[in-house]
Amino acid sequence: MKKIFLAVLLSVIVAEISAQEVNNFRREHPVISPEIGDSTITFRLRAPEAQKVGLFAAFLNNNVDMVRNENGVWEFTTALPSPELYLYKFIVDGIQVCDPNNAFQQRDGVNYYSMVIIPGERTENYWESKSKHGTIHQIWYESPTLGITRRMYVYTPYGYESGNDSYPVLYLFHGAGGDEDAWTNMGRTRQIMDNLIEKGEAVPMIVVMPNGNPNQAAAAPLRIPTNRDFNPRDPKNADAYAHSVAKDIIPFVESHFRCKSEKQYRAVAGLSMGGGHTIAVSGLYPELFDYICPLSNGIRADQTTLERLDNLKSAGYKLYWLGCGSDDFLIQRANALDSTLTAKQMPHTYFKNDGGHTWNNWRLYLNTFAKLLFR
Amino acid sequence: MKKIFLAVLLSVIVAEISAQEVNNFRREHPVISPEIGDSTITFRLRAPEAQKVGLFAAFLNNNVDMVRNENGVWEFTTALPSPELYLYKFIVDGIQVCDPNNAFQQRDGVNYYSMVIIPGERTENYWESKSKHGTIHQIWYESPTLGITRRMYVYTPYGYESGNDSYPVLYLFHGAGGDEDAWTNMGRTRQIMDNLIEKGEAVPMIVVMPNGNPNQAAAAPLRIPTNRDFNPRDPKNADAYAHSVAKDIIPFVESHFRCKSEKQYRAVAGLSMGGGHTIAVSGLYPELFDYICPLSNGIRADQTTLERLDNLKSAGYKLYWLGCGSDDFLIQRANALDSTLTAKQMPHTYFKNDGGHTWNNWRLYLNTFAKLLFR
Repeated sequence: MKKIFLAVLLSVIVAEISAQEVNNFRREHPVISPEIGDSTITFRLRAPEAQKVGLFAAFLNNNVDMVRNENGVWEFTTALPSPELYLYKFIVDGIQVCDPNNAFQQRDGVNYYSMVIIPGERTENYWESKSKHGTIHQIWYESPTLGITRRMYVYTPYGYESGNDSYPVLYLFHGAGGDEDAWTNMGRTRQIMDNLIEKGEAVPMIVVMPNGNPNQAAAAPLRIPTNRDFNPRDPKNADAYAHSVAKDIIPFVESHFRCKSEKQYRAVAGLSMGGGHTIAVSGLYPELFDYICPLSNGIRADQTTLERLDNLKSAGYKLYWLGCGSDDFLIQRANALDSTLTAKQMPHTYFKNDGGHTWNNWRLYLNTFAKLLFR
Repeated sequence: MKKIFLAVLLSVIVAEISAQEVNNFRREHPVISPEIGDSTITFRLRAPEAQKVGLFAAFLNNNVDMVRNENGVWEFTTALPSPELYLYKFIVDGIQVCDPNNAFQQRDGVNYYSMVIIPGERTENYWESKSKHGTIHQIWYESPTLGITRRMYVYTPYGYESGNDSYPVLYLFHGAGGDEDAWTNMGRTRQIMDNLIEKGEAVPMIVVMPNGNPNQAAAAPLRIPTNRDFNPRDPKNADAYAHSVAKDIIPFVESHFRCKSEKQYRAVAGLSMGGGHTIAVSGLYPELFDYICPLSNGIRADQTTLERLDNLKSAGYKLYWLGCGSDDFLIQRANALDSTLTAKQMPHTYFKNDGGHTWNNWRLYLNTFAKLLFR
């Protein structure tokens, strides 16, 4: 009870101070958050009226309590985590709050998070490249296969608009809960591709990031209702999205952007649900892609899937690159895909690393397999 | 004190319930916020541990207290405001929080807000158009005038990528505190232009939205440091941005997009600081624009400004359209521009309406003057 009495007392005292005095105080004592030191990171939130402030940070195993200092600023300092992009949020009296002193945010589905990038080798391609930046096009296309007008994001490399070259194309799919914004926003695709291309570590390419939810026109914040005539759970619609990639998306991209439109210049990759889309479209249309990269997904070795892999083997391909983390809840499926490809004598790379079903891994995978495409 | 004892008692009871039960309860009692009724609007926030929850909403004169119901959901219901796009936030024990049940958000500078659009004639062009959507290009250009690589947003109308037509161009500038994202995000420019063009009320046009802060490469959330070698307050830099529009931006746009590149196909408009940029660039380069639309700004009738207006009068123009609200803190400057244009016998339209220095007015102005361009 002591704390509550103190809080009541403090709120009375605070009420005695004029708004002008509060504003002056804030200007003189700006809150810096997060503050990255040589070996520590500190999170801060000015919340003099809060009873309890906690911190969720993706590098902590559990939420932690923050400590209130005499100025009403809550703080938490811990050892600097390893280089990575981390999401975090404050929890103020039970409510999740983005850091008001950090405009660096990401949207994951319908949730917004503050974010911080810890510098290091792992994250060096997640920052803006030195000088050459590609363009993000938010463009709409007709999908007769799905019966709606839909939005996709298209990355074109630096120089696309000023030149006449044609480029190879990577089709890059998000997971369940994501949308056409996910790879650009959560995945830092533009920054990664800009850096790889600027350093000469990846071939300049176009990256197409469509919306993988077949009943959705575009990301939820645009507030366009989903297509109720289309039931994604109806078994007859199981491959509808894969068909729309082949029938709607690729023809649109190849007629609206300067693309090299042969198999050797097309790659497909996707994470989780998008890994499923990758496996489906490359099996249903084995003549389309020479580079196939499912991430954090794999197969149940059912008859349909096995037949599709046979189709792909007959058609041929240049690279089959599978990435999955050892803690990923889909690791068994990835292992099944790996062993099936081995049993079928289909050459492939299994990039098996630490970590789970997270964007930490998906950014790393893109940063890794993009160097291998179109070589 | 009664309330505090009750809160403590409740938190003890809540602690007895398992996480599973809490999750089940939440699934069975989803929080709908905001809920728009025929004549009311209700905001809701589940915050059982909060001591006090308030609401900031742009249509309310003051922040209001919300009331906690027996499920720990705080509510506030009021009369439905007039049709408009409104920002709002909750204030949980003194901390501003976006509505976690509403993914519809806007960023204003470094602050994020939840938003709601009240349907009606005023807002009908703020929603997605029926079927034809233009593209937003986030594209980078060199600015030798300002010494940095910078980002701009470019809207191209539906059909741009599939056709060969050239289009007229509107250069559209944001205000202080904004960036190259502001007109697309806060201003709903894509939706407004898509609707006007789809209805045949505006000529299909390209809209160029650069960053108007001359020392900034791009919006703050990209975390690119500002250019410290450039001091925007140095008097010798007063017109640097206007010069960069003429010397860097227009040549880049006209060489990278299919534009009609004569004066009769160029318009310039901007709000607040961007209104100042509009007046400056149209006076310094009177040969460039036939359509000039400063919004929520005007002039101090100093010698330099008067000479620039004389230059513009000599060069000629087709439309001078000035918009300002009666409560705008810059209304005296807008009045001074109006009376100066009148005194100089320079034809112009003064669109003087209610309201202040707000996006409510800037969206309305765009939705109004865009119909008059390139006719």
